Amino acid sequence: MKKLFVIKIGGNVVDDAAALKSFLQKFAGINAHKILIHGGGKIATTIGKQMGLTPNYINGRRITDEATIDLVTMVYGGLINKKLVAALQSLHCNAIGLTGADANIIPAGKRPVAEIDYGFVGDINSSQLAVGSLQLLLDNYLVPVFAPLTHDGQGQMLNTNADTIASALAVALSTQYDVRLIYCFEKKGVLENIEDELSVIQLINKEKYQQLLEDKKLADGILPKIDNAFAAIDNGVQEVLIGHADDLLQNITVDTKGTLIKA
Amino acid sequence: MKKLFVIKIGGNVVDDAAALKSFLQKFAGINAHKILIHGGGKIATTIGKQMGLTPNYINGRRITDEATIDLVTMVYGGLINKKLVAALQSLHCNAIGLTGADANIIPAGKRPVAEIDYGFVGDINSSQLAVGSLQLLLDNYLVPVFAPLTHDGQGQMLNTNADTIASALAVALSTQYDVRLIYCFEKKGVLENIEDELSVIQLINKEKYQQLLEDKKLADGILPKIDNAFAAIDNGVQEVLIGHADDLLQNITVDTKGTLIKA
Repeated sequence: MKKLFVIKIGGNVVDDAAALKSFLQKFAGINAHKILIHGGGKIATTIGKQMGLTPNYINGRRITDEATIDLVTMVYGGLINKKLVAALQSLHCNAIGLTGADANIIPAGKRPVAEIDYGFVGDINSSQLAVGSLQLLLDNYLVPVFAPLTHDGQGQMLNTNADTIASALAVALSTQYDVRLIYCFEKKGVLENIEDELSVIQLINKEKYQQLLEDKKLADGILPKIDNAFAAIDNGVQEVLIGHADDLLQNITVDTKGTLIKA
Repeated sequence: MKKLFVIKIGGNVVDDAAALKSFLQKFAGINAHKILIHGGGKIATTIGKQMGLTPNYINGRRITDEATIDLVTMVYGGLINKKLVAALQSLHCNAIGLTGADANIIPAGKRPVAEIDYGFVGDINSSQLAVGSLQLLLDNYLVPVFAPLTHDGQGQMLNTNADTIASALAVALSTQYDVRLIYCFEKKGVLENIEDELSVIQLINKEKYQQLLEDKKLADGILPKIDNAFAAIDNGVQEVLIGHADDLLQNITVDTKGTLIKA
């Protein structure tokens, strides 16, 4: 099967012009099918403040009210997404910027209201992803660049976590491609000792993961990423890499750095 | 050759929820290949004001400075474009939202500085449109929805007139499709007497156009539209229709309303 790299970058890369430039150069240089998923970054909050919007929090969780979904649709789906596309085009990478609404690639449902109403937040209908349209783009050497947005099929855009979009796309495409899913974040990998930036764990399999959990060695922030990773692997993704963009994308087609997660 | 409708709507439709809903229903119902190009509308100005941006004018012409290109990239390319896509998807029209940067479909150059520096305004490199990528989408029953934005190939987004994008796309695709270019605007067509809304001229050919010009019967606003129309026809487009969306899109595959422009 053909190789496909599904690569997610977060706000820390999007917000930092130098880090972003370096990332995009490395990403453009990957000589294989690839998809980029970007997070939001702080700029939506900055622009929201300029517009006089007051962020709405319940129990410390930001709520996506109507003004916020409009804000992130324009900032994530417009400003950030199109700037990334224009930058990649300048590096001769034939990027095409998308949200989950475009070509109905990522249908989702508004998260049901339980204890908290998160507002316009979308949970992906994983079995309904438009794999065919995505494959059409990939097989014609286009490079999809996704903003963290989906839609409900009834005209409403929805805010969706970029990590989740990345793993959903990786899983859906794993029947057609040999998929490697890559989460870029601010550290060099999953750390054995969170005080020591160099204590990167090279390989986490399920056994190792159980042991790390029992030893309570993992920081809270990393748990959902590793859970996402194993969920992807259990559903067809070959392997998942977690680490810093600078290391991960160096020779990515032949070598792996950061933390490798495998069954 | 297969029929292709290239349809442009302006701010008057985008800004009016009821008019937009009615337009989108008719657009979704067109049973042929189709492309939508939308203008900006007043919402960019409203959001710019909320953000504290002061529009920059020289000799009465709005200048696209750096803050303005960011503003229109997010509002046209994000907010308006993705809302249109989500709405069309809800009507079972497989829309895919694009700017000219996406898949490098519309390369442009920053307008050279002469008397006035218009800022980040793009003049389309008509001979370099990525017709193949657009055809790939169309032939797979996707419906491209374009925001009035292009890029310079060096990482810079550019503001570009929606009428011009529509005619450039129509011309470029006329070698592969039987193209009908449709400009929706606020009147029922080109009027013989601008005081009389019902005096729609049914057909304008070049002879009639010369006569209308000599008789000074045409309002200033309509001249560039008709010039654009004849430029498109001289370059391969079958015919151009100008009129109100409500009339034009009624039975469009079999009948024409509004003003028909032909060689």
